[in-house]
Amino acid sequence: MAASGKARRQRQWLPLLSDLRHGNAAQWLQDGLAGTITAILLVPQALAYALLAGMPPEVGLYASVLPIIVYACLGTSRTLAVGPVAVAAVMVSSALIPFAQGDPQRYLTGALILSCLSGGTLLMMGILRLGWLTNFISHPVLSGFTSGAAIFIIATQLSALSGIPVPREAGFIAIFTELARHADKLNPATLAFGLTSLVLLVLSRDPLKRWLTARGVGSGQAAILSRVAPLIVVAITTMASSITGAHDRYGVDVVGRIPQGLPGVSLAFLQASGWLALLPSAALIALIGYVESISVAKALAFRRGEKVDPDQELVALGATNIAAACAGAMPVAGGFARSMVNFDAGARTQLAAVVTALWVALSAFLFTGLLADLPKSVLAAIIVVAVWQLIDLRALLHTWSYDKGDAMAQGLTIVGVLLLGIEHGLLAGASLSLLLFLYRTSRPHIAVVGRLGDTEHYRNVLRHPVQTWRGLLLVRIDENLYFANAPRVESELHRLIVEHQPLGDVVLIMSGVAYVDTSGLDVLDTLERELAAQGIRLHLAEVKGPVMDRLMHTELIRRIGAHRIHLSAHQAVCAIRGNAEPERSP
Amino acid sequence: MAASGKARRQRQWLPLLSDLRHGNAAQWLQDGLAGTITAILLVPQALAYALLAGMPPEVGLYASVLPIIVYACLGTSRTLAVGPVAVAAVMVSSALIPFAQGDPQRYLTGALILSCLSGGTLLMMGILRLGWLTNFISHPVLSGFTSGAAIFIIATQLSALSGIPVPREAGFIAIFTELARHADKLNPATLAFGLTSLVLLVLSRDPLKRWLTARGVGSGQAAILSRVAPLIVVAITTMASSITGAHDRYGVDVVGRIPQGLPGVSLAFLQASGWLALLPSAALIALIGYVESISVAKALAFRRGEKVDPDQELVALGATNIAAACAGAMPVAGGFARSMVNFDAGARTQLAAVVTALWVALSAFLFTGLLADLPKSVLAAIIVVAVWQLIDLRALLHTWSYDKGDAMAQGLTIVGVLLLGIEHGLLAGASLSLLLFLYRTSRPHIAVVGRLGDTEHYRNVLRHPVQTWRGLLLVRIDENLYFANAPRVESELHRLIVEHQPLGDVVLIMSGVAYVDTSGLDVLDTLERELAAQGIRLHLAEVKGPVMDRLMHTELIRRIGAHRIHLSAHQAVCAIRGNAEPERSP
Repeated sequence: MAASGKARRQRQWLPLLSDLRHGNAAQWLQDGLAGTITAILLVPQALAYALLAGMPPEVGLYASVLPIIVYACLGTSRTLAVGPVAVAAVMVSSALIPFAQGDPQRYLTGALILSCLSGGTLLMMGILRLGWLTNFISHPVLSGFTSGAAIFIIATQLSALSGIPVPREAGFIAIFTELARHADKLNPATLAFGLTSLVLLVLSRDPLKRWLTARGVGSGQAAILSRVAPLIVVAITTMASSITGAHDRYGVDVVGRIPQGLPGVSLAFLQASGWLALLPSAALIALIGYVESISVAKALAFRRGEKVDPDQELVALGATNIAAACAGAMPVAGGFARSMVNFDAGARTQLAAVVTALWVALSAFLFTGLLADLPKSVLAAIIVVAVWQLIDLRALLHTWSYDKGDAMAQGLTIVGVLLLGIEHGLLAGASLSLLLFLYRTSRPHIAVVGRLGDTEHYRNVLRHPVQTWRGLLLVRIDENLYFANAPRVESELHRLIVEHQPLGDVVLIMSGVAYVDTSGLDVLDTLERELAAQGIRLHLAEVKGPVMDRLMHTELIRRIGAHRIHLSAHQAVCAIRGNAEPERSP
Repeated sequence: MAASGKARRQRQWLPLLSDLRHGNAAQWLQDGLAGTITAILLVPQALAYALLAGMPPEVGLYASVLPIIVYACLGTSRTLAVGPVAVAAVMVSSALIPFAQGDPQRYLTGALILSCLSGGTLLMMGILRLGWLTNFISHPVLSGFTSGAAIFIIATQLSALSGIPVPREAGFIAIFTELARHADKLNPATLAFGLTSLVLLVLSRDPLKRWLTARGVGSGQAAILSRVAPLIVVAITTMASSITGAHDRYGVDVVGRIPQGLPGVSLAFLQASGWLALLPSAALIALIGYVESISVAKALAFRRGEKVDPDQELVALGATNIAAACAGAMPVAGGFARSMVNFDAGARTQLAAVVTALWVALSAFLFTGLLADLPKSVLAAIIVVAVWQLIDLRALLHTWSYDKGDAMAQGLTIVGVLLLGIEHGLLAGASLSLLLFLYRTSRPHIAVVGRLGDTEHYRNVLRHPVQTWRGLLLVRIDENLYFANAPRVESELHRLIVEHQPLGDVVLIMSGVAYVDTSGLDVLDTLERELAAQGIRLHLAEVKGPVMDRLMHTELIRRIGAHRIHLSAHQAVCAIRGNAEPERSP
C-alpha cells in the first residue's frame, strides 16, 4: 500500500518518470520519432510566432527548449505539445506595443515579465484550486475569440507579405487603410517569396497528401511528408534568397543574423519595472493559454483512456511559463495543431516532447547561421497558413441555429477582437455571455399544478386536465432560487397568490430547486411573513436533501414547522385537504 | 370589453387618474392626512440629504415637489413615497467630488446631469425591458451596501456635528485621522446643538411612543406625534440659535439664507459637459435607487393585495429623475422609512404624495426665510438618526449561518464601501457574489445510478443498494449544463467512463437539466463522437421538453437517433438490456 501510494504521488508530481519506468525500448523509439516530427513542424513556427509577437525570431527557439522540458516533467498530459502559439503571440504583441512605446529593450523585458506573470497566475490558480475561474470563457466566446484573433493575425501579416510598411500599432481597420495609402511601396520580390511560400504550403497540405496516397504511399507516411513541407519551404526560399541576393539587390526584408546557441538562464528581468501594468494582460494570456491547452489535453487523453488533472495542469503550465521567462522567452501554451501531430505521429509519453526540445536546441546551435537570408515574408506565409485553419465562421451559424444568445456573444467577440482589440473583445464577449446566462435564469418556469386524475401525479393546470381545490394553491418552481431570479420569483408568487384569493394554504413544490441562496431564502422568508399576516399558511413539499440541510437551521423553517413540510405534493394535499372543499378546474 | 381595455390601459399608464375615479371623499381625506404626515417627516430630511449630497439645502426641497408629482402620476405603487434618499445622496457626493474638482457651479450642474442620466438609464431599461439587469445586486450585497453606506454617512456627519473641519473628499479612514488631528478646533456650541438634537431625536422614537401610550394616548396618535419630532427639533433649535446669535457669537455653522420659492423648470444643464464621465456613477445610482424602491413598493403592494409592475416602475422612476433634473434637483428614489410612514398613516393612493408635494412647495415659499439660523449640526443629527436604522450588522451573522459565500460577499461589500469607496465597494461585492454563484454551479452533482429493487426507480449507487449491469453505465446530471460547468462535467464523465470500462452503452439521465447552452451541447456532442470512436453507444433519458425542443435540430440528435432517446431510465435499461448481463453491485 505504501509503495503504491508513493507511486501514485510520483505519478502525480513527476508523471514522466513513472511513465518511463513502465515503458519499453519500442515505445521509446516511437516517442523519439514523434518528437522528431513535431520538431520539424515546430522550428519554422517558433521563428514565425516570435516575429508575430514582435520579438527577434530566436526567442521562439528559446521558448521551445527549457519550457518544453519543464512541461514534460510536470504535465499530466502525455501528448500535449507546448511551445509558442499564435494566439498568445498576438496577445503579447498587443500588450507590449503600448507598454514599450517604441523601446526595444523594454519590449523584450516586457515579454519576460508577461511570461513570468502568466506563469505565476496559473501556478497560484493551481495551488488555490481556482481552475473553475477559467469557466468564465464559454465555448462560443472561445471560438469567436480564436476566429477573431486569427483574422486579425492574418491582417497583421499582410505588411510582411507585401513589403508595404504598416506601423505595428495599427488596428484592424488601420492596417487596410495604411496598405491602401502606401500601395506604391509594394515590394514585388517580397510578395513573390510570400505568395510562392503560401501556395507551396497550401499545396503541401491536403493536395499533397491526396497526390501521394493516390500514388500508393501509405497515408501515415504521406501525412509525415506533408508535415515536413514548411521546413522544406524555409530551406528552398532561404537558398533562393541567398543566391539571388534578395536582400541587397531587391530590398527583401530578411531575418538577418540570429545569435547562435541558447542563452543561459537569467533572472535579470525580475528587477525590471512595469509588473503591475502588465498583470491584466498576463492574466488574460494565462487564461486563454490554459483553456486551449486543457481542452486539447483532455480530448487526447480520453482517446486513449488516460486522464489529465486540470489542477495539476495549472501548476505544470504555470511552471512552464516561469521557465520560459527564465529562458528569455515569450509565454507558451499547448498548441492544438502541434499536439494533434504529436499524437498522430504516435507519441505515447512526454519523452517525445523531450526529443522535440533536444532537436530545437540542436538547431539553435547548428542552423541559425543559415537562416540569415530567410525572407520574413516566408515566415508570414507560414503564420497565415497555420492560423487560417483557426478561423471557423461556420461555427457562428451553427451556434445561431442552436442558441441565438450564445451566437450574439460569439459574434460580439469576433467583432470586438477586430474593432476594440484582442483583450477588450474577449472581455466584451465573456461579459455578454455571463449577462445572457443571468437573463435566462432570471425568468424561471413557475407552474400552478393540480392532481392528475386519481394518481399521485401533480401537473401544470395549463397543460393537463387536473383537479384543484378552493383555498389551496400548489405552485412548482423549476429553477434554483438565487439572486438573479429572486425578484422575479417573488413577483410571480405575489401575482399568483393575489389571483387565487381567498386562500387558506399555499404549497411550494421544490422538486426542481437544487440550491437556494440567501436572496432566495429572503424571498421565502418574507413570503411566509406576508402570508401569515393575511392568515394564509405556507407549506413546502419535495424539498431536496441538500436544500433541506441548509434550510434546517433557519428561522423560516422554525416558523413553518415540521407539520407543514411534506415529502410530496400529494402528501401535502392529503394533510391539508380537511379544510379544502373539492372543485373542478375550468 | 373595449371600455375595460381602455380602463386597463389607463390604469397602466396613468394609474393615479383611475384610482381617483374609483375613490371617495373619505378616502381622499385619509390620503390628505397621510400626505401631510409624510411631508412633516420629509421637509427636514430633504434639507439634510441635500447637504449630505454636498448641495445647498433648498435643492432637497426642489427634489420633493415636481419629481413627487411625476411619480404620483406614472407609478404603479400606490404608497411609495419618493424624494431625496440618504444612500443616493452620498453616491451623488462621491461621484461629484472628483468630477467638480472644487468648482461649485460644476458641482451643481453635475448633480442635474446625474439626475437626468440616472433617469434616462431607468427609462431605457424600462422601454427595453432590461429590468432583470438589476438582479445583479443580490440581497446580501444590497444589505452590505446599505450598512456600509450608512456607516460611511455617519462618519461624514461627524465633522458637521463637532464643528471640526474635514475636507469633503476625505475617505472613511481619513475622516478619523483628520478629526483627531484637528481635535482642538472642536466647536462646543456646534457640538451642543448636534448632541441635543441627537438625544431629542432618539428619545422621540420608541421612548416617546412608549411614554405616550403608557399615558393612555392611542398608539396611532403616539406614532404621529413621534414623527413630528424632527420638525419640532428643527423649530426649537432654530429659535435657540437665533436668540443666542449662535452663528455670530459662537461660530456655529448655520444653513444661511435660502432662496424663497421654487425655480422654474430649466433645461440649461443639457448644454453642460461631462455626461460621459458621469454615466457609470449615474447608472449605479439608478440601479441602487430602483432596487430599493421596487422592493419597498412590492412589499407594500402585496400587503393590500395590490400589484406593482416592475417594468412600468422603471419608466416611472426614470421620468421622475428626469423631472428632478429639470427642477434643478438631485436624483430621487423611493425611501424605505418614508414609504412605511405613508402606508401606516393610511395612504391609499398617490394622492397622498401629491399632498406631500404641495406642502413642500408651500414651505419653500413660506418658511425658508425662517431657516437661516438653523445650525447644520442639527441637520447632521437628523441624518445620523435616519441612517442609523439602516445599519444591520446582525444580517451579516445571519447570512454567515446560512451561506458562508453570501456572507463573504456581504462582508466584502461593507468593507469595500468603507475602504475603496461607495462605487468600488458595490462593484466588488456584486462581482464576488457572481463569482461565487459560478463556483457553486461549476461543480454539479453527477451520480452513477442503478435500479432500486424491482421498482422503476433509479438511485445513486453510493447511497442505495441498487442493481447495475456490466457494460452499461447510467449517469444522472443534477444541474443545468452551461459554460460554467461544461469543463467539469466533461472531466467527470470522462473519469466515470474510463473507470467503468469495458462499456457498451452510456445513458445520461437528464431529469435535473432545465437548460443546455452551446458549451453544454459541445460537451455532449464531443462525448458522443469520442464514445462512438470507441464503439460505445451514448443514450439520453428523461430529457425535459424545452431542452429537447432545442436539441431536436442538432447534429447530435441526428447521430444519436430516436431509438437511443428514452423517456425514462427504466425504459433505457429495458431497451439496452438484451446486450447487458445482470450483475450485483458491491
